[in-house]
Amino acid sequence: MAAAEKTTRPVFAVLGAGHGGLAMAGHLAIMGYKVNLYNRSEERIWGVEARGGIQIESDFGLEGFGKINITTTDIKEAVEDADIIMVVVPATAHKEIAVELAPYLRKEQIVVLNPGRNFGALEFKQVLGSQGVDYEVIVAEAQTFIYASRAVGPGQVKIFRIKNSIPVASIRAHLIPEVLKKLRIAYPQFVAGDNIFKTSLDNIGAVFHPTLCVLNAGWIEDDSEFQFYLQGATRSVCRVLEQVDRERTQVAEALGIRALTAREWLFLAYNAMGRDLYEAIKANAGYRGIAAPISLNVRYINEDVPTSLVPIASVGKKFGIETPTIDSIIDLASILTHTDYWQTGRTVTSLGIEKMTLRELLLLAIGEK
Amino acid sequence: MAAAEKTTRPVFAVLGAGHGGLAMAGHLAIMGYKVNLYNRSEERIWGVEARGGIQIESDFGLEGFGKINITTTDIKEAVEDADIIMVVVPATAHKEIAVELAPYLRKEQIVVLNPGRNFGALEFKQVLGSQGVDYEVIVAEAQTFIYASRAVGPGQVKIFRIKNSIPVASIRAHLIPEVLKKLRIAYPQFVAGDNIFKTSLDNIGAVFHPTLCVLNAGWIEDDSEFQFYLQGATRSVCRVLEQVDRERTQVAEALGIRALTAREWLFLAYNAMGRDLYEAIKANAGYRGIAAPISLNVRYINEDVPTSLVPIASVGKKFGIETPTIDSIIDLASILTHTDYWQTGRTVTSLGIEKMTLRELLLLAIGEK
Repeated sequence: MAAAEKTTRPVFAVLGAGHGGLAMAGHLAIMGYKVNLYNRSEERIWGVEARGGIQIESDFGLEGFGKINITTTDIKEAVEDADIIMVVVPATAHKEIAVELAPYLRKEQIVVLNPGRNFGALEFKQVLGSQGVDYEVIVAEAQTFIYASRAVGPGQVKIFRIKNSIPVASIRAHLIPEVLKKLRIAYPQFVAGDNIFKTSLDNIGAVFHPTLCVLNAGWIEDDSEFQFYLQGATRSVCRVLEQVDRERTQVAEALGIRALTAREWLFLAYNAMGRDLYEAIKANAGYRGIAAPISLNVRYINEDVPTSLVPIASVGKKFGIETPTIDSIIDLASILTHTDYWQTGRTVTSLGIEKMTLRELLLLAIGEK
Repeated sequence: MAAAEKTTRPVFAVLGAGHGGLAMAGHLAIMGYKVNLYNRSEERIWGVEARGGIQIESDFGLEGFGKINITTTDIKEAVEDADIIMVVVPATAHKEIAVELAPYLRKEQIVVLNPGRNFGALEFKQVLGSQGVDYEVIVAEAQTFIYASRAVGPGQVKIFRIKNSIPVASIRAHLIPEVLKKLRIAYPQFVAGDNIFKTSLDNIGAVFHPTLCVLNAGWIEDDSEFQFYLQGATRSVCRVLEQVDRERTQVAEALGIRALTAREWLFLAYNAMGRDLYEAIKANAGYRGIAAPISLNVRYINEDVPTSLVPIASVGKKFGIETPTIDSIIDLASILTHTDYWQTGRTVTSLGIEKMTLRELLLLAIGEK
């Protein structure tokens, strides 16, 4: 019975104990899964260690205490008996997680990036390869993160929302059904994501977050408060958002992918309708009350620019698609935050696809390369 | 006596009856000069025609009524007896003024662009040439506009401030002393401006205005009010301003010109001191109370981008100086305001200097080319 249960109920390792990792680990544990929780630094897991688990609260009936099997800063300990390894760290930390993970990965494990941002699975595979992982571990990426949550105390998390349709794709696309089959035991919310280019290029945060921050830089850094979407996305600002969005969908097209436009996405994700992006944003009840960040040192810039805009621009250049507006946002964000994102970000070089033809790239996504 | 007076007291034509042109025409008339006032559209001069002149007020003792000799929409009538032609229109209108003026210009007249923004005198000369003006009219540019003023009623202007050191340069640099000699009869405030590249590249509005608008686009277009410099120029925004400024001074250096940095200029113009640009802006009492524009359809963008940033970037490219930050601001301003400033703005092509070497360019400024 215990052996049978092992095959049907996967063991999870959750890597990362921020707002998101704590929500996922706690919720999985409450659902009855065996969960190991890893975080690189100790401070983040002290509360969980002290309690022996994670207390979840919400406004929609989900609450309870999830007992965590192992809480550790030793990645080996966290992953050695895991079937599914959920990576829940900022996308800028995927590289280092891949390096740390490489020595302990087993062929039959599944790594899921929650989310991958743009080309996260590709980067992860590239780093694993550079670390001598020569067997084919399954690396998958989710298109967005399933929880909206916030740590509210030591080992305590409030979950605001669980999204209900999260596309996921693995590098060997023919394995997507297998990945889904295992993931959906715990999470029926995961759906098939076509391929890693589709999950990557449908990342709408890449469009909204950095551009809204750059074109409202003074307002954000001043003491004033404002609503990020409802006030920050004015008519003229939306013209820039639409241009960034157009460049993203053009890069997608160069890969043969039809990416959703931001306006289409607002309709599908929020049922928000408008004749243009400005009207659609204004019509989105989900944006009401979302305050702007109070500093430019935020993941909207320091995560989204290097792991979303830079790879979109870099892939665009490889295939002859100009992305001047995206480039401008990257350049200005770099100066605003004193970081050269062209250097630190994901590029066709760092992704190891610099010399590939489109055919080779698509074969790579399918797993024939 | 009348004939003698004519030689010592020049007759002025003021072209443009906006806030600035009205102040200049009214003040010159109060000082006793014969002034003709031209405006292309009638509405702007109705008030002056009805009064027969311009009523000037101020908080520093300057007030009175300046009788205007001729108020007209016929440029020929305005300039035919003028010794000095003061062009006081947005720099984007210099081209059309040059076209209208060309048939009536006489060799001994002096044209002064108030101000030229960047390379205004060069553009003006280029257009005059294209209109068949083959004799050498003197075209000069002021580095900034002498008045801060506002029309407060029909034919009524309030002058807030008269600046006290305005560099001016003509295309044939050896004529600068002659230009100054005539101008300073009325305006002792004008000083020698070295050459047209120096007056052009020391234009600090090019640094501040467009960048502050772009990086505060949402805030400007939202209903909120804020102080343009004191709130809009946050620490991070100032990093971008400093980079724009660095690119401007590098372009100047490529022409052999040492342009003032924005920080140095704040010290010289306002006695505002700071270890960096952020501190200097904060320390500038002159910026207190200056409200941000309430729309992006403002001269800070629609004049400064095409007549300042675009020519700086274009000249930079010609001489191998990269201006990526300036380019980003131009690109985003273009999208924000639905205008391709790379097309409408001043470039080495439209300035007629595309094929010139630096030596030829400097000879042009001196008048040997």
